[in-house]
Amino acid sequence: MSGNYSIGVDLGGTNLRVAVMRQEGTLTETIALRTRLQEGRDTVVADMCEAVAALHLRQNGSGKCVGIGVGTPGPLELPAGILRRPPNLPGWDGFDVRRAIENRLNQPILLESDANVAALAELHFGAGKHFGVDSLCMLTLGTGVGNGIVLRGHVWQGANGMAGEAGHTTVVPDGLPCGCGSRGCLELYASATGLRRMALESIAAAAQPESALARLAHANVEFQARDVARLAEAGDAQAQAIFTEMGRCLGLTLAALINTLNLPLYVLGGGSAAAWSLFAPALYKEMHERAYVYRATEPTEAEKVARTPGKTHVAQAELGADSGILGAAYLPWVEVPAQGSSL
Amino acid sequence: MSGNYSIGVDLGGTNLRVAVMRQEGTLTETIALRTRLQEGRDTVVADMCEAVAALHLRQNGSGKCVGIGVGTPGPLELPAGILRRPPNLPGWDGFDVRRAIENRLNQPILLESDANVAALAELHFGAGKHFGVDSLCMLTLGTGVGNGIVLRGHVWQGANGMAGEAGHTTVVPDGLPCGCGSRGCLELYASATGLRRMALESIAAAAQPESALARLAHANVEFQARDVARLAEAGDAQAQAIFTEMGRCLGLTLAALINTLNLPLYVLGGGSAAAWSLFAPALYKEMHERAYVYRATEPTEAEKVARTPGKTHVAQAELGADSGILGAAYLPWVEVPAQGSSL
Repeated sequence: MSGNYSIGVDLGGTNLRVAVMRQEGTLTETIALRTRLQEGRDTVVADMCEAVAALHLRQNGSGKCVGIGVGTPGPLELPAGILRRPPNLPGWDGFDVRRAIENRLNQPILLESDANVAALAELHFGAGKHFGVDSLCMLTLGTGVGNGIVLRGHVWQGANGMAGEAGHTTVVPDGLPCGCGSRGCLELYASATGLRRMALESIAAAAQPESALARLAHANVEFQARDVARLAEAGDAQAQAIFTEMGRCLGLTLAALINTLNLPLYVLGGGSAAAWSLFAPALYKEMHERAYVYRATEPTEAEKVARTPGKTHVAQAELGADSGILGAAYLPWVEVPAQGSSL
Repeated sequence: MSGNYSIGVDLGGTNLRVAVMRQEGTLTETIALRTRLQEGRDTVVADMCEAVAALHLRQNGSGKCVGIGVGTPGPLELPAGILRRPPNLPGWDGFDVRRAIENRLNQPILLESDANVAALAELHFGAGKHFGVDSLCMLTLGTGVGNGIVLRGHVWQGANGMAGEAGHTTVVPDGLPCGCGSRGCLELYASATGLRRMALESIAAAAQPESALARLAHANVEFQARDVARLAEAGDAQAQAIFTEMGRCLGLTLAALINTLNLPLYVLGGGSAAAWSLFAPALYKEMHERAYVYRATEPTEAEKVARTPGKTHVAQAELGADSGILGAAYLPWVEVPAQGSSL
């Protein structure tokens, strides 16, 4: 990367981060702001562009800017750069975010969904580096289930920029309605929201109304997935069963991805991936039973955590919340501006 | 392609075809043989290589051979080129087919599974050309359900050459056992074998044992999927219900593929794809209900059959049984020999 640099923007519904990347994925300067959603989208774009300009100025005389990468919540239509009902950016439906940013900066940007930039960062600086692979599929288990796919080092955007919605794979054909319009999506069984709902359903259905899980839920108005995880870690069978179901549903989705794409690595990130030890046994069992491509490439216990060419790995993300800004800042090093760029 | 040529080999469990391709996918000379499986694999490889050599000789003085492409039944481990329990080549498990062919020809070959070369041919000369796309996913509805994926003009082999097993996507989580070791795979509901089984199950479960479908099955010891299709086309509700179930299962699998990969085209080939009019309504309904990426890119009725950029198309294959030899012969024009090549 010589003395050149890139600028990355990680736009979230709560936080806005802008950073300078030099050599090998190192962020040298960062501006972290609140996303002022209530002030309107023009204010948010202005905040972002001012931070970009400020960081540009501060690099004066030290290398050339190779580009600006921006990660935003999706769904994002690409190459156009238009947001389509983004659940985390209320009021931004139909907003041509690419044009708004490029007009204000007066230069083209590289734009991707946050799930895609996170996957790119994990490939180059996180789990993908650990396992020595050039392709991966990442599922981000947060409020929903995000997904990004990187093939041979490049984000796979799909024909309309809408690839990476594996969180809406059907795992229970007659399951509950999902916000996406379908039923029984993975997101309902592997997100923090889904885990909380499964816990409440388990309490309502239980023969013993006074279980430890029920007491925990009733005592805490802010009862969340992480409370269920804590109880499961302490050995509570009712709480553990919820993570077993989560692992089974994740395994079913990963089995289909493995049989279809035969990637060397599948990465699980987001807050609920921290419950790895609770759901991993059911996940591995389901993949083994469902995917013969997995059985043909299954690592031993020792190989599961180490670089092992020829094996299919499933691993936790390694970059945490930094994946968004790292991936956005890394975009200009691996991609060229899209033809849809409005400049 | 100037005056140069390639040679393609389509090795099947029954037929062996070897052909010369010049310019724009035109086959100029073809040798069609029976696959002498009962004589052993060395005989089959010898037959194949003799035909290749004969066609080489006949091109003498007219252009340069750009390469030899070979399509074989899978599963095929790549880049090594080793067959893994290929159901259509009994006795060939573990056979290093790449090495056997290359040693005899004394030159490197390009090797792919038959489903992959068929998908490549459909992209460049069939449905992909019709719809003007550079990527597609093809499902071949034959005795089983084969699958090949082509991304930006190139076959997606996956890390071990085992990509393209979407036929073993779970569509009925608690469904019947499948030969692959899983349960409820698409193949059990969308292959000719699966359609026949569903018809027999429907007869066994029917309140009226003397239905038209039952009479047809009992009168014909070779009762097959195409007999069910003929009855459904004549308006028989019991036979039609079987194709509705086939369409629903195909739609469920395509919905997951569309949400995950957002490809512009999904192609259905193989004998059972001819029942298109019987299963397509259920297929489109299921994709619409299951995949919000499909709803966001859904073509109108008129757009479903015409080149329409930005839309997600599902279409019948256009090349029929020629896709295997066309794709194999086209491989050398788009790919370079793999590092796994034994020479």
